[in-house]
Amino acid sequence: MKEIVKLDISKTDGFLGDTDVVALEQEAVRSTGLLYDGTGKGNDFLGWVRLPSSVSAEELARIGRTAERLRAKADAVIVIGIGGSYLGAKAVLEAMSNPFAAWAKKQNTPRILFAGHTLNEDYMYELMDAVKDLSIAAIVISKSGTTTEPAVAFRIVREEIERRYGKEEAASRIVAVTDREKGVLKGLSDEEGYETFVIPDDVGGRFSVLTPVGLLPLAVAGIDIAALVEGARAMERATGVDVPFAENPAARYAAIRNALYRKGYKVELLASYEPKLQYFAEWWKQLYGESEGKEGKGIFPASVIFTTDLHSMGQYIQQGERMLFETVISVAESKHKVRIAPEEKDVDRLNFLAGKRVGEVNRMAEIGTILAHVDGGVPNIRLEIPRLDERTIGALIYFFEKACGISGYLLGVNPFDQPGVEAYKKNMFALLEKPGYEAETCAIKKRLGETK
Amino acid sequence: MKEIVKLDISKTDGFLGDTDVVALEQEAVRSTGLLYDGTGKGNDFLGWVRLPSSVSAEELARIGRTAERLRAKADAVIVIGIGGSYLGAKAVLEAMSNPFAAWAKKQNTPRILFAGHTLNEDYMYELMDAVKDLSIAAIVISKSGTTTEPAVAFRIVREEIERRYGKEEAASRIVAVTDREKGVLKGLSDEEGYETFVIPDDVGGRFSVLTPVGLLPLAVAGIDIAALVEGARAMERATGVDVPFAENPAARYAAIRNALYRKGYKVELLASYEPKLQYFAEWWKQLYGESEGKEGKGIFPASVIFTTDLHSMGQYIQQGERMLFETVISVAESKHKVRIAPEEKDVDRLNFLAGKRVGEVNRMAEIGTILAHVDGGVPNIRLEIPRLDERTIGALIYFFEKACGISGYLLGVNPFDQPGVEAYKKNMFALLEKPGYEAETCAIKKRLGETK
Repeated sequence: MKEIVKLDISKTDGFLGDTDVVALEQEAVRSTGLLYDGTGKGNDFLGWVRLPSSVSAEELARIGRTAERLRAKADAVIVIGIGGSYLGAKAVLEAMSNPFAAWAKKQNTPRILFAGHTLNEDYMYELMDAVKDLSIAAIVISKSGTTTEPAVAFRIVREEIERRYGKEEAASRIVAVTDREKGVLKGLSDEEGYETFVIPDDVGGRFSVLTPVGLLPLAVAGIDIAALVEGARAMERATGVDVPFAENPAARYAAIRNALYRKGYKVELLASYEPKLQYFAEWWKQLYGESEGKEGKGIFPASVIFTTDLHSMGQYIQQGERMLFETVISVAESKHKVRIAPEEKDVDRLNFLAGKRVGEVNRMAEIGTILAHVDGGVPNIRLEIPRLDERTIGALIYFFEKACGISGYLLGVNPFDQPGVEAYKKNMFALLEKPGYEAETCAIKKRLGETK
Repeated sequence: MKEIVKLDISKTDGFLGDTDVVALEQEAVRSTGLLYDGTGKGNDFLGWVRLPSSVSAEELARIGRTAERLRAKADAVIVIGIGGSYLGAKAVLEAMSNPFAAWAKKQNTPRILFAGHTLNEDYMYELMDAVKDLSIAAIVISKSGTTTEPAVAFRIVREEIERRYGKEEAASRIVAVTDREKGVLKGLSDEEGYETFVIPDDVGGRFSVLTPVGLLPLAVAGIDIAALVEGARAMERATGVDVPFAENPAARYAAIRNALYRKGYKVELLASYEPKLQYFAEWWKQLYGESEGKEGKGIFPASVIFTTDLHSMGQYIQQGERMLFETVISVAESKHKVRIAPEEKDVDRLNFLAGKRVGEVNRMAEIGTILAHVDGGVPNIRLEIPRLDERTIGALIYFFEKACGISGYLLGVNPFDQPGVEAYKKNMFALLEKPGYEAETCAIKKRLGETK
């Protein structure tokens, strides 16, 4: 079971003393306990810990039925959300998709288009222009309904849907994922008759991909969400509070990365040789950056896709500031086979690879790079999954979530709040003269006048 | 002219003393001089300094004719290259494109598909599968022709083109951008009769986007490459050796970022509110990471797209480790207009934005965020371009190149080599038992056996 994600920390050996890790083992065990007994910081937001094992078959079935309805009605489903209401679905969708499928073949499932994750005007224009001749539906994801980015996008999309299909039909083309009872979006949904799914109170945005926040858009896209949840469930068991530290990959990953951080390795690079994991890395960056980056501390999360980025960030990683460590997500098996053919005249001098699969070359690049980076002074953590499918991705999601909770407690912060995200919003509302921000509006205008 | 890129460094004031900047002004002026008199480190690779003003009308015309031929023949043009032979074209293409155009409408220009920038087997399979029913051509970009990633992809693509169209027709569907006279790809091209374009000897990969490396794929995609070069040319003048420091934005940007680095700000975040600049940031990361990340030093380059990433990395930026500074690329004008409509019942409480353009809200988010991050301890540099078009992107490319050369000299490194990139290749070749690597193969196998 726990073998879905194999953790190899042997390539951190030369960088850490024995005592560094022993000290953290005790702390990590304690931190894992806090997640289960609910006595740590941010304990109002621990719903994700037992989430996989508590997703009911009924919930999955209802999500499936709603997805089916949207698929039947729409060629394009616009998913409106930002942060945790965007990145989880986007990450899993990209991990599971053929990147060329959008245009190369007729898809059986609607296009999933994202909105509400940006205030870029051209993006909004070009999105609405692109769906002009397509039948559309929308999933709007927001706890409150007042977060600016999704609220603006939803007003625009909702008006378009109502204009095209009328209010009544709109009500069957719009689904909201929102608070159980509070908030503007819940109120609007009740009034208009939109079907709603619940974002549990005790699950924060960045931990919400296994709730309807992620599951509904993924089901529309034809992703096997039952397998996704099943993978997460297996990992919930494999990282449970009763699992000894030595066998708990999440606790060990959390301990090692904190040991490295305490030694001055302040940047973690999530690396993969699988381009489909680019947005999985973005999801991971939110999860760790938002959970740990506070009180003047936290590992800075960055990501690279190799071998592509060995030809951009590779030089820096090999020889730049020695403050980096690397965590590699390795996918053991490709889905498809492409062999390098022999050629009679070996003009390009590649015949030494003839008969090999492209993936074998990729694998040797991975092994060679890990050794090169370790030699260059970059500690390496390796996570191997057997293949890229719903089950392994579900497991990987929960693995990182669990490790994140433990890791945040090791760091001594509340891993479940994000007080710093309000700062820009406050200024933006002041500048936009939002009602209730009159004093701030006055102050910021004065400041801008002064510093001009 | 120099106004194409407006530089605002006022938001670094509180973080730097007067003497910090004065000291660097002198050094920056000297460093600029080294780029022009060719007496600095890596002076074999200064061809990019005067490149924009030396691109001839004949060269542009020939690129245009070849692009026209490929456009006429192919529905999809596979551009094969890695690092600087990939990121420049990709960056400009994305900056200029409607992200939905690939499927939303019939394009007049062929699809540009990238290969040779990865060894991922599924990517290669799905790419070749996607073009099964499309007419194809290829542009292969490699100085030597033996870099593994593009060489493997080119062998696969070339075989497919020859299989479909025969060797003779293949010769008019394959174009090589390579060395003037040396190397495997040049030899193969001469033998097979492929048209070739030259990568100048004195221009390194990451500085090559304004050579045929970038210009040919971009011309195929219908990008106005003359305007791109014209923008760069304007910036070449605006950052010339005769321009006083106070009026030279590239020298000032280089000085300020080094002053910040010397104060302990070790991570630079390139931020933009324009999602189309995501790959421009990737290009920038290669440019700076590969030029500066050596000898155990260099600013670590990272990037974010706001406001999207304010809901992922925003928390860290606001309150995490204080080792970050931010460089914002601000685009003054959107191309399209989308207004937020008023609603009778203001259920979503957005009527305070009614009548405003989405881009105005984005702009207020930008101003608000800069102030919030500065207040949080993140120095801010702001670059404003009037709009996203070929001319401004050309100017921005040259601006960053020039500043990078100056910056590398300020740091005391050779900004034009990349010795660290060889380390992983050596290990990979040893693992793949490449002829000539027998001793390394023996050593690495022994090492892997030992550390298993």
